[in-house]
Amino acid sequence: MKGIGDLANHLGLTVGTVSRALNDRPEVSLKTRKRVQAAAAELGYVPNQSGRALRKGATNTVGFMLESGTAFAVGGDNFFHGVIAGLQQTLEPRRLDLILLPCAATEDPHEFLRRMVSRRIVDGLVISATQRQDPRIALLVQSRIPFVALGRSGDVPEHAWIDLDFAGVAKDAVSRLVGKGHRRIAAAVPASEINLRYVFTEGYRAALARNAIDFDPNLVLPVELSEAGGAALADRLLALPSRPSAVLLVNELLAIGLYHRLAQLGIQPGRDIAVIGFRENPQARFLSPHLGSYRLSLADLGIALGQTLLSRIDAAREARRPEPVGRLWPMDYAPGESEG
Amino acid sequence: MKGIGDLANHLGLTVGTVSRALNDRPEVSLKTRKRVQAAAAELGYVPNQSGRALRKGATNTVGFMLESGTAFAVGGDNFFHGVIAGLQQTLEPRRLDLILLPCAATEDPHEFLRRMVSRRIVDGLVISATQRQDPRIALLVQSRIPFVALGRSGDVPEHAWIDLDFAGVAKDAVSRLVGKGHRRIAAAVPASEINLRYVFTEGYRAALARNAIDFDPNLVLPVELSEAGGAALADRLLALPSRPSAVLLVNELLAIGLYHRLAQLGIQPGRDIAVIGFRENPQARFLSPHLGSYRLSLADLGIALGQTLLSRIDAAREARRPEPVGRLWPMDYAPGESEG
Repeated sequence: MKGIGDLANHLGLTVGTVSRALNDRPEVSLKTRKRVQAAAAELGYVPNQSGRALRKGATNTVGFMLESGTAFAVGGDNFFHGVIAGLQQTLEPRRLDLILLPCAATEDPHEFLRRMVSRRIVDGLVISATQRQDPRIALLVQSRIPFVALGRSGDVPEHAWIDLDFAGVAKDAVSRLVGKGHRRIAAAVPASEINLRYVFTEGYRAALARNAIDFDPNLVLPVELSEAGGAALADRLLALPSRPSAVLLVNELLAIGLYHRLAQLGIQPGRDIAVIGFRENPQARFLSPHLGSYRLSLADLGIALGQTLLSRIDAAREARRPEPVGRLWPMDYAPGESEG
Repeated sequence: MKGIGDLANHLGLTVGTVSRALNDRPEVSLKTRKRVQAAAAELGYVPNQSGRALRKGATNTVGFMLESGTAFAVGGDNFFHGVIAGLQQTLEPRRLDLILLPCAATEDPHEFLRRMVSRRIVDGLVISATQRQDPRIALLVQSRIPFVALGRSGDVPEHAWIDLDFAGVAKDAVSRLVGKGHRRIAAAVPASEINLRYVFTEGYRAALARNAIDFDPNLVLPVELSEAGGAALADRLLALPSRPSAVLLVNELLAIGLYHRLAQLGIQPGRDIAVIGFRENPQARFLSPHLGSYRLSLADLGIALGQTLLSRIDAAREARRPEPVGRLWPMDYAPGESEG
């Protein structure tokens, strides 16, 4: 039997159009509806079959837990839009709807997730903003709900995760800066206990060691991941006893406030201090001088999360033990004028 | 009987802490748990009562439909974070969870909503990005599901809505600019059929008329609501046969690209062209020269949406006909250096 994706490919139509045609929706012309339905019969596609199979005791819904306090800030706002679009693209052929589960800043994330799991409103889950110690992972493993984590944690239970390569970015940024003659390089890291703080700092430290530069803990600056945090960072950099000649940023929102505050003080990125940002995003693209940062396809990341989750949903249905999956997501340097 | 909000007020604790204490969660100290539980007994608070009542045939969940194609762009990204936090604050004492329903850009919003309604996964809905003609409103009225629209539409059925005062902002911005001697004032509006396009343009037009300035359709520039749209806007403004001396923006993302492109061309906002932005947001706050724009409390807007929705959920439970509510949300001018 063919899936709806195969059917769409065969016909040169989008999955959405094929789905609407199979449901006899009036938005699709009668001619196209007939054509799709004929091809479905010819190719042995049975409408709704996979949906129906899943629906046995299932919700046909996948949840993405978002934490307003941390996750939203990890990659800036647009980050999640891109990932969500990729996820939806992967889920649509399986007739799975994505719902977002925002955990309020005032609520305990573990307690929130426990409630969502006990309500059984989703067949699978994506969690993000993984903390160094994250009790949500043990909860999900125990409850046997298929899930994938966007981000690692320091916790033991085997599970599926995909994480941006924070250590790789830190190493690459330090090497670039050392290559330009910098030896006193600061790093702005999250002030929270989010796991990426430790991964990023370790990568930074390892790259310094490789270049025979002593690690100075005063140059690791925990900041709030926001525009205001970037402005505060500028003042802290300048207040250091021996001013660093370069700084790397763990988050893209920081660059906006950093640039603004430096400009007020007459200090220009790229000329007076080297700056390397984290993720290239639309706001950073409009900074002057252009910010050097790292590029990734958010849609591809969303697709990978979706595929990993689907394979785990399938394994659960077939009572198979899924393979544990751990995957680092690479990011490519997009040069700017800010790295000096 | 007291609600959990009253109990929290009485004890000087947050609703979250009281909730956790009533559920005997270990994050709350034993002493506080005992204190909360004693006060609950004393004041006649029955844990879960309102939840239980609602749960009769209910989901205890409220949905917020988000459209990646339009809604996300209406107010920029942070817009929804603030509104969601306010909504959650209002729903929490009623033990209602908020879930977000993101409609993929590839899917028809009406069809998406129809599916969500037929699944009965929520007790009430917030919709946004209302179009000039929006079939979702008739669908929700017919299905008798309680809802509130963030944004008006040109459609007939009576329903509850709260809308930012787009016309008021356009009128105020034009008056300010005329007061500074400007007569040739352009307006950047959305390129889509979203209803606010028409409301904003009408306000702009009315304010011109009040100041005896002829309306010139060439000065109304439909743009994509993004940073890139703002950059394109700069080129279009400069390409006009008789260059406008001022421009007002319907969206905050536009300012970022507009500033950047103008800077490349050696044109400075406030000195060479007056600019008034729409919503004051963190990114705009870090633009130089400081952008004049309009301020609102996103949390208060979320609270108002939540209260309106709750009153409609209550009316539905009691088989009452709810009052139609239409409410314009005012915004206050926060002066900048960009208005000349």
